[in-house]
Amino acid sequence: RLDRERFVATMEEQARIGATEAGGLHRLALSDEDKEVRDWFTERMEDAGLAVRVDEFGNMFGRREGTNPDANPVLVGSHLDSQPYGGIYDGQLGVIAALEFVRSLNDAGVETTHPIEIVNWTNEEGSRFQPAMQGSGVWAGAQDIETEYAKTDEDGVSFVSELERIGYRGDDPAEPREEYEAYLELHIEQGPYLEENGKEVGVVTGIVGFTWGGLTFHGEADHSGPTPMHYRSDALVAAADVITAVRRIPGTLGERTVGTVGYAKVHPNSINIIPDEVTITWGFRDPDDEIIQEAYERVLAEAEHAADREGVDWEHEERMRAPSVTFADTCVDAVQTAADDLGLDSMRIFSGAGHDATHLHSVCDTGMVFAVSENGKSHNESEYTSWDDCYAAASTLAEAAVNLAGR
Amino acid sequence: RLDRERFVATMEEQARIGATEAGGLHRLALSDEDKEVRDWFTERMEDAGLAVRVDEFGNMFGRREGTNPDANPVLVGSHLDSQPYGGIYDGQLGVIAALEFVRSLNDAGVETTHPIEIVNWTNEEGSRFQPAMQGSGVWAGAQDIETEYAKTDEDGVSFVSELERIGYRGDDPAEPREEYEAYLELHIEQGPYLEENGKEVGVVTGIVGFTWGGLTFHGEADHSGPTPMHYRSDALVAAADVITAVRRIPGTLGERTVGTVGYAKVHPNSINIIPDEVTITWGFRDPDDEIIQEAYERVLAEAEHAADREGVDWEHEERMRAPSVTFADTCVDAVQTAADDLGLDSMRIFSGAGHDATHLHSVCDTGMVFAVSENGKSHNESEYTSWDDCYAAASTLAEAAVNLAGR
Ligand SMILES: NC(=O)NCCC(=O)O
Ligand SMILES: NC(=O)NCCC(=O)O
Repeated sequence: RLDRERFVATMEEQARIGATEAGGLHRLALSDEDKEVRDWFTERMEDAGLAVRVDEFGNMFGRREGTNPDANPVLVGSHLDSQPYGGIYDGQLGVIAALEFVRSLNDAGVETTHPIEIVNWTNEEGSRFQPAMQGSGVWAGAQDIETEYAKTDEDGVSFVSELERIGYRGDDPAEPREEYEAYLELHIEQGPYLEENGKEVGVVTGIVGFTWGGLTFHGEADHSGPTPMHYRSDALVAAADVITAVRRIPGTLGERTVGTVGYAKVHPNSINIIPDEVTITWGFRDPDDEIIQEAYERVLAEAEHAADREGVDWEHEERMRAPSVTFADTCVDAVQTAADDLGLDSMRIFSGAGHDATHLHSVCDTGMVFAVSENGKSHNESEYTSWDDCYAAASTLAEAAVNLAGR
Repeated sequence: RLDRERFVATMEEQARIGATEAGGLHRLALSDEDKEVRDWFTERMEDAGLAVRVDEFGNMFGRREGTNPDANPVLVGSHLDSQPYGGIYDGQLGVIAALEFVRSLNDAGVETTHPIEIVNWTNEEGSRFQPAMQGSGVWAGAQDIETEYAKTDEDGVSFVSELERIGYRGDDPAEPREEYEAYLELHIEQGPYLEENGKEVGVVTGIVGFTWGGLTFHGEADHSGPTPMHYRSDALVAAADVITAVRRIPGTLGERTVGTVGYAKVHPNSINIIPDEVTITWGFRDPDDEIIQEAYERVLAEAEHAADREGVDWEHEERMRAPSVTFADTCVDAVQTAADDLGLDSMRIFSGAGHDATHLHSVCDTGMVFAVSENGKSHNESEYTSWDDCYAAASTLAEAAVNLAGR
């Protein structure tokens, strides 16, 4: 059994690092706040007697040995970074639950057959540097480390320089050093389904696929007054057409398809200059990879139409493509059994958000536990999961993990 | 006759202050570069024997006395500030032409009946602080000085603090100290009409009216993945609808109506967060004030529809409303006669851009000269007017001004 009081206190402790005034979290990957929470987490892992290591991409591991030296480790964790002005639960809950899990094993003097490793993946959010799930992606071999090192944020600062600056470019190679028995991750649902169905915990069966990308339109800057309408090549008008199309496309594809333009940057961004350069992003998700491909083709077709109409040039860059993932039965069953054994009211659910588990799926059997998200809100300071729901999900994770690790 | 070589050299000199790599000008109102060009201009006016004064809003005047102590001054000038990454001609040409005009009177030992004042108006561009034509607006009584002092730029820095910082909050009241005989302004056309018609100089008959404003949409930030489309209140989608509408509205109103969204700011601006706050601007212009009012009503109606559709809140703020202006016959005739006397091929033209002359119109008889804009381009580093065309327009200005001032 997890120590509920210590668990809640530890959640509150981490939430102070990068706290926003409105009670959220602003702890972007490789920022000063990320460094601070990493330092704090290192200490907590050492206090729990774990052997800490950091890999060359900043992924942090804490290991607790098992009784069988030949057994493969069970990996449990998530991420401590946040969205800009995000919430305090997100992936943080998954990391703190993993920590509390090993602390509880220590308290109870339980030895497991398999070693247990807990993990904090680098840059899961993908907001400052893209793609999301970058640390787990590199570690699982889905992304090339040199390419990802070279990525830059909005200010042109490179990933690797920031990783070094905060002191988290470790020595360990960013790859699995051995085979893993399983990976389990607890995360908040970030959607409305558990709450809508009155459930206490979610047994995740898979993760939607997605495509992310950027579109840039190049028009001609000119004076907003004396330039007749038919002389104009307005990059923002072309971008607006695509924003509208992205709102419409999901409704023509699938029940669970979603599409979003979350980002727009306008140059020179002056009230009386016709914009000459506008960048927007796209994001589409669906459980079906073919729908993802179709959405990708449609957004490019819309961009081409819009650019033609407005007489502007355009270019695009797909920044991420993640296939839809279906979890291993062993893990789904382990999570289901754990929830049942704890007497929790659960339901099976397909994740609408990407998770580090997406990449871990290619390394070993993988599963996830979802905690209820009030109003389905996340990536927002008002993201909320009650301590009851946090505790229910953390207990499910611990129960499933200890069963997989063998006691 | 103006000294063409000195005139071109002076144009080139001013263009060095705040020069961009691409040969444009980045000299925002009340910036360090604006201070530098003001210091430079003060020296040039003093060298030309003018009595320099600066008013409490930073407008700079240089006076050359006339022979009749009772005669009202003829005022000639424009503005030295620029758009972000704008061109080197814009209003700068009008100020340098005014300076070269008095220098040439000095060279030739010409005494005029009326005093001549040359002027550099503060913040004509309206990019960093809004509205545009702010200095002339305050001076002419169209704007309240305390309200304008309190205006802030994007970083929340106030106009008055910047004016003091650069040392240009002068002692003179920002208002006409006496009656003025006339105001003449030379500016580049910023539109394509003179070039399209193969003309050498434009005789401006009036200025379009305009409305400028800001619209802000307030939606709900949420995760771009697990949030079903029908749960969303996306502020950027609402804004995109209005951007599209602004492109369309002019075509339903008048032949010369233009409409532009030059600015958009998205919060939190992350690829995987549904935007919760988006601000865009509008700008509409037309020679007919009723069309301006109609465009204003339509853009608000569009905003309301878009906000309803997306389930977001919205607010608006009109930042500027300038009536359409028709110039005094005396001034139009003086400019026409000057162009004819110089043997220049001219045409009458209505300005599609706002100018300080808009406000001066309420103070005294006002007129303008337009120089040819290649490709109609302005507010852009590639803005271009040949030295021939600059000189033709400057000569027309000088000829018209000296006639009004009486030699
Ligand atoms: N779970 C989560 O928010 N991951 C970030 C990447 C994504 O947007 O899905
Ligand atoms: N002439 C000019 O560019 N004025 C700035 C204000 C406007 O946009 O008309």
